[in-house]
Amino acid sequence: MLRVEMDRADVPDAGPGETAATVCSLATPAPLLDKNRLDRNLARLSSRMVDQGVVLRPHMKTAKSIDVARHAQRSGAGPITVSTLAEAEYFARHGFRDITYAVGVAPHTADRAMRLRKAGIDIKVLLDSPEQAAMLGAAGRAAGVTPSAFIEIDCDGHRGGLTPTDPKLVVVAAAMVEAGVKLAGVLTHAGESYGLSTPASLVAAAENERAVAVAAATTLRAAGHECPVVSVGSTPTAHFAEDLTGVTEMRAGVYMFFDLVMHGVGVCTTDDIAISVLATVIGTKPEKGWILVDAGWMALSRDRGTAAQRVDQGYGLVCDVAGKIYPDLIVSQASQEHGILAIRLGSAHALPHLPIGAKVRILPNHACATASQHELYNVVSAGSDAIHARWPRIRGW
Amino acid sequence: MLRVEMDRADVPDAGPGETAATVCSLATPAPLLDKNRLDRNLARLSSRMVDQGVVLRPHMKTAKSIDVARHAQRSGAGPITVSTLAEAEYFARHGFRDITYAVGVAPHTADRAMRLRKAGIDIKVLLDSPEQAAMLGAAGRAAGVTPSAFIEIDCDGHRGGLTPTDPKLVVVAAAMVEAGVKLAGVLTHAGESYGLSTPASLVAAAENERAVAVAAATTLRAAGHECPVVSVGSTPTAHFAEDLTGVTEMRAGVYMFFDLVMHGVGVCTTDDIAISVLATVIGTKPEKGWILVDAGWMALSRDRGTAAQRVDQGYGLVCDVAGKIYPDLIVSQASQEHGILAIRLGSAHALPHLPIGAKVRILPNHACATASQHELYNVVSAGSDAIHARWPRIRGW
Repeated sequence: MLRVEMDRADVPDAGPGETAATVCSLATPAPLLDKNRLDRNLARLSSRMVDQGVVLRPHMKTAKSIDVARHAQRSGAGPITVSTLAEAEYFARHGFRDITYAVGVAPHTADRAMRLRKAGIDIKVLLDSPEQAAMLGAAGRAAGVTPSAFIEIDCDGHRGGLTPTDPKLVVVAAAMVEAGVKLAGVLTHAGESYGLSTPASLVAAAENERAVAVAAATTLRAAGHECPVVSVGSTPTAHFAEDLTGVTEMRAGVYMFFDLVMHGVGVCTTDDIAISVLATVIGTKPEKGWILVDAGWMALSRDRGTAAQRVDQGYGLVCDVAGKIYPDLIVSQASQEHGILAIRLGSAHALPHLPIGAKVRILPNHACATASQHELYNVVSAGSDAIHARWPRIRGW
Repeated sequence: MLRVEMDRADVPDAGPGETAATVCSLATPAPLLDKNRLDRNLARLSSRMVDQGVVLRPHMKTAKSIDVARHAQRSGAGPITVSTLAEAEYFARHGFRDITYAVGVAPHTADRAMRLRKAGIDIKVLLDSPEQAAMLGAAGRAAGVTPSAFIEIDCDGHRGGLTPTDPKLVVVAAAMVEAGVKLAGVLTHAGESYGLSTPASLVAAAENERAVAVAAATTLRAAGHECPVVSVGSTPTAHFAEDLTGVTEMRAGVYMFFDLVMHGVGVCTTDDIAISVLATVIGTKPEKGWILVDAGWMALSRDRGTAAQRVDQGYGLVCDVAGKIYPDLIVSQASQEHGILAIRLGSAHALPHLPIGAKVRILPNHACATASQHELYNVVSAGSDAIHARWPRIRGW
């Protein structure tokens, strides 16, 4: 039996997508990023924060791309937020110097963050316990740097953090002083805002997020701590906050791309969704009202975030190759490399005629999850079939 | 403002995980692959197929790793099944020559598959329409090769394919002759078997899969076609088939690793699950019964496949670092980089004491989805903290 251990030079190693210059010649499934929509989304929140007098610290966990980061934060140096130290190291290597790592710190991440700090990066980490303060202080001493950290504040019971009335708040701040960790400020995230869908409830969630963060800062200041930064943020609250008194910075990430979940929350229209997945029709089952495409959950992600919303979009909403939505055509089922397109139950719309080989674009439920299934963005613009650029993205931890 | 365009050599570019030699020193989250369990799972199905006299054609869509492929298929040349042409090209470059691409063919994949065929790879594709036969024939002529394809058979309404009584079956076979496409045989997949949970229903699903595939082959042979291969397969039916008369080959993929969905179906025990995600405790919320870890859906995937089963495992079942299950401790919620561990509702078990920095292993719902969130496998064995090897995996299309 023939056995070839080494790479075989005679075997092609890349599909047509690697060199395609047009949308229609891309190997599918492939992610498309509409630059006009991206720019518009970035400008919208940026201008809103300028009006409010609050620093915008974009969260790069959605895009994970230096090219997108340089559009979102034109200084090219920060401030930005990241969700992994792999992101922190990547953006630091590309010139970003002011980085908040917004996930609770543990021993191995403390050491690694302090190596970045030693390299001159102003990285700030997150904690909510005296144990973390002590281990961060030890990591700082080992690296010969002074760590800087936010105390995580819990504004809506979403995940971690301390409430402003928790007696542990001043205990943690004292432990930071004891451990030689600088208090950067307080940081909270209104994660429960993703479950809302009316303007009034979003305005209230934003005001709660603000009030809780400011209350925590007030408690810390009353105990003699400086607490310079009051950081809040989620894409819904960032777009609905009417008053940000006492807040110094806003964090948001998915607003760059938007998605069907954010559309269901009421933060964007479907015309604002900048990311989509190009797919090809590979089969039809007219007797079942099905069209099969080559984008399954591997290309779209398993995210079913709209399942709990008023309008369930399945695994995504289907558009023609130019981006025009087919009314009520959704990805009703997905397996690894197959998507089944069908008209939404109860709709009077007819299944469009899409022969084998036809291309469609699918708007995703959750941009963070869908983008993470891909290596790069094929950058496109409205009204053109051209691929303007390919922007790589990173993954891992 | 400082702006550095180039990579900064002074910024560290990798976490401790890149060089860690033990499980406890890995940067988390990190995927672990238990080689003892992998070997046992591979031997179990392999020996079952030897007993049945049926060729096993492992599906590499779960593992996507040349190292796993060489364990599953020791010839190092095939037969294997793949779900993307990126997999086909990757395995071909590493010596595999007998490859079935088990997703319906479209114009761009036909061209690309024929380039592999031209390079000497016996790649077989899948179709169920005269249109696909014609475009595949054209791609073969353009490349100067004779294409080989299976007709996809629908045995349970899961997705694509023709039923054995569909008059289109012989029409497609005739279109293949007309287009100069060789009929490799018939291929079906009992995808609905994933929804079952009793041995009797699994035995019945396997028998239905067999009977439908054989009936389709019989129809084609009666119409004068050779139809040499009768290919069936899904992990549940592969393990429950009692009689495979008329079947020539079996395809299965997730059996290599197994997962909680397969456990819920009844195909494996939790002790058979070879893949897990190592995570670190980053916070606690005792008042809510929560432990926070640094494995969210980015590390575990968004797959909630056990939600529809008798026992909902949340986003995964939690074990200690040696792999022993904490009774009823599951990942009850997941955001991008956070998992919330909690005791299953209704359980009398207490939350274990897990301080910040403690490590846990999480068994995933769906091995295909979880593995796809990672770049490589950290290969471990029972009773040892050592990382024996790092096996890379591929992604993309």
